[in-house]
Amino acid sequence: MQTGNGNPTMKDVAREAGVALGTVSKVVNGIPVGEPYKEKVEAAVKKLNYRVNNYAKGLKSSQTYIIQVIVPNLVNPFFATLVHYIYRELARRGYKMLLGETDSDPEMEQESVFLAEQQKVDGIICLSYNPKLQAPEKVPLISIDRYFGARIPCVSCDNYGGGRLAAEMLVENGCRNLAFLRIGSSLTNEPNKRKDGFVNGCEGLGVPYTMKIVDDYTPYAEFEKFLQEHYHGGKLDFDGIFCVTDSLAYQIVGTLKEMKVRVPEDVQVIGFDGIRQFGDMDYFCSTIVQPVEEMAEQCVQMVLEKDAAKKPALVCLPVRYAKGGTTRV
Amino acid sequence: MQTGNGNPTMKDVAREAGVALGTVSKVVNGIPVGEPYKEKVEAAVKKLNYRVNNYAKGLKSSQTYIIQVIVPNLVNPFFATLVHYIYRELARRGYKMLLGETDSDPEMEQESVFLAEQQKVDGIICLSYNPKLQAPEKVPLISIDRYFGARIPCVSCDNYGGGRLAAEMLVENGCRNLAFLRIGSSLTNEPNKRKDGFVNGCEGLGVPYTMKIVDDYTPYAEFEKFLQEHYHGGKLDFDGIFCVTDSLAYQIVGTLKEMKVRVPEDVQVIGFDGIRQFGDMDYFCSTIVQPVEEMAEQCVQMVLEKDAAKKPALVCLPVRYAKGGTTRV
Repeated sequence: MQTGNGNPTMKDVAREAGVALGTVSKVVNGIPVGEPYKEKVEAAVKKLNYRVNNYAKGLKSSQTYIIQVIVPNLVNPFFATLVHYIYRELARRGYKMLLGETDSDPEMEQESVFLAEQQKVDGIICLSYNPKLQAPEKVPLISIDRYFGARIPCVSCDNYGGGRLAAEMLVENGCRNLAFLRIGSSLTNEPNKRKDGFVNGCEGLGVPYTMKIVDDYTPYAEFEKFLQEHYHGGKLDFDGIFCVTDSLAYQIVGTLKEMKVRVPEDVQVIGFDGIRQFGDMDYFCSTIVQPVEEMAEQCVQMVLEKDAAKKPALVCLPVRYAKGGTTRV
Repeated sequence: MQTGNGNPTMKDVAREAGVALGTVSKVVNGIPVGEPYKEKVEAAVKKLNYRVNNYAKGLKSSQTYIIQVIVPNLVNPFFATLVHYIYRELARRGYKMLLGETDSDPEMEQESVFLAEQQKVDGIICLSYNPKLQAPEKVPLISIDRYFGARIPCVSCDNYGGGRLAAEMLVENGCRNLAFLRIGSSLTNEPNKRKDGFVNGCEGLGVPYTMKIVDDYTPYAEFEKFLQEHYHGGKLDFDGIFCVTDSLAYQIVGTLKEMKVRVPEDVQVIGFDGIRQFGDMDYFCSTIVQPVEEMAEQCVQMVLEKDAAKKPALVCLPVRYAKGGTTRV
């Protein structure tokens, strides 16, 4: 983690002044300390150009040094990791983060965006599933993973390339008959891109494929039914499955285990997202890894960029394949 | 999720005024709309006592309606879930959340606390591993999981009771020879309580136990060595293992698998935390579940409580056992 480019911290002031952190805090908060200490701290604050009280300063300069980050929730490890990296990048640049969760409720998403504007934050980074999301009038908005048109710059991973890579990796692993499984809102276009890339990959390689695509409201049992329908004489009709998320892949592997279908011997499975167990251990499955850290950096850079001409409408960052035990290689 | 007790939202204003959300946003942000719309919105704002611009209001009333939440990081699913529930409870009460990560660096934790005070937030909720953490002078601080003395109220789960419950559940599952494995900073007292409760449970039940306790800097290989040392004639010396976290339990189960020791047939394993795969699916292992939602609610209630006499120094909330595949029952 780089810190060299960031603003000076209270710790830097303490070091420069040769006093304890608590002394610096007291001085900047107006709590009495011995005069020699006060002078040392004030000299260091001046020398380092330490920014005292962003909050009050914000009102004068009309900058608050606060960015609002809006995600569906933090329980989903993909969103939590994304917020982690956005936080880190904002902190490095001396910005604070106001967090907002929306539970994927479109009205809540819209309200969060409008409210953030009202809070006078310097920018908004939003992961919304609301296809009709209106941008705020006065505050820059960066969208993650949803493209709302050229007015709202969007950062996402290369979903299309990832879908194609999944097909290629399954074939490289020896699969000859593929399936694509997807659950998710039909409003979102990103899972569609994963599908389109997958189809393109299969067709390019001349490999047959089957698809099962359902919306968020369909019970998981539909997938069990689909697998049963394609199970004949102790064998599945396909030997490679691409699932639209790691979470779905994890469930599918569980169902296959119950059906006594061996993974990866009988069928190989690839998910999408690159989620790790406990945040930093093994992958749950072989997967197409989203470059979460780079996506976070890109969002922060774009939300703070003053020159609109330097903000592309859509930035797709490259994905990579990672082995996670559900493929041969 | 309750919303009835919360403050009126922009959505409530829109509904009351019979206009679109965007219209309400424009009016409160001073962007021109047709006069009849403006009047409707203003009437609704007044009727519902909608709080316009907490931020600006904060400076007048010296309340900002912002709570600073400080955790080591969001990559760890336990911390992410905790922040999720704290957020939800704050939002229900009309408060915003400033998020801070510290990477468990004691200096960063101290600086985050002092900085939050300087930002004039209404309160701080902090999960810190810094045993010397100084409380801010002007802003209420609630600590999660670390007890710093009566001046800083602390919310935690019943770690002691959880340790004892782990011993009891292993014995109830037929184990007759237990082990306790712990990794973690020797500065933190909570893992010690889990150990103390476990020891108390073993002694109360008259069951022998072994312990392996290492600090954060010890490589995991020490546990592999420990297991090998207790492996004789194709059998482990113990038939039940309590691990101080789910994350450690997950690793231990992996090592046991490599050693061809069957879980739960040959040895049963219980972790601590209650972490679910992908945030909301299966538990990683049989576990002592921390009441994360209740802990979050308690933190928010205590940080907003004005009457210091109503803030107990330490609140320990009850844990429960959950089966997760690494025990018989």
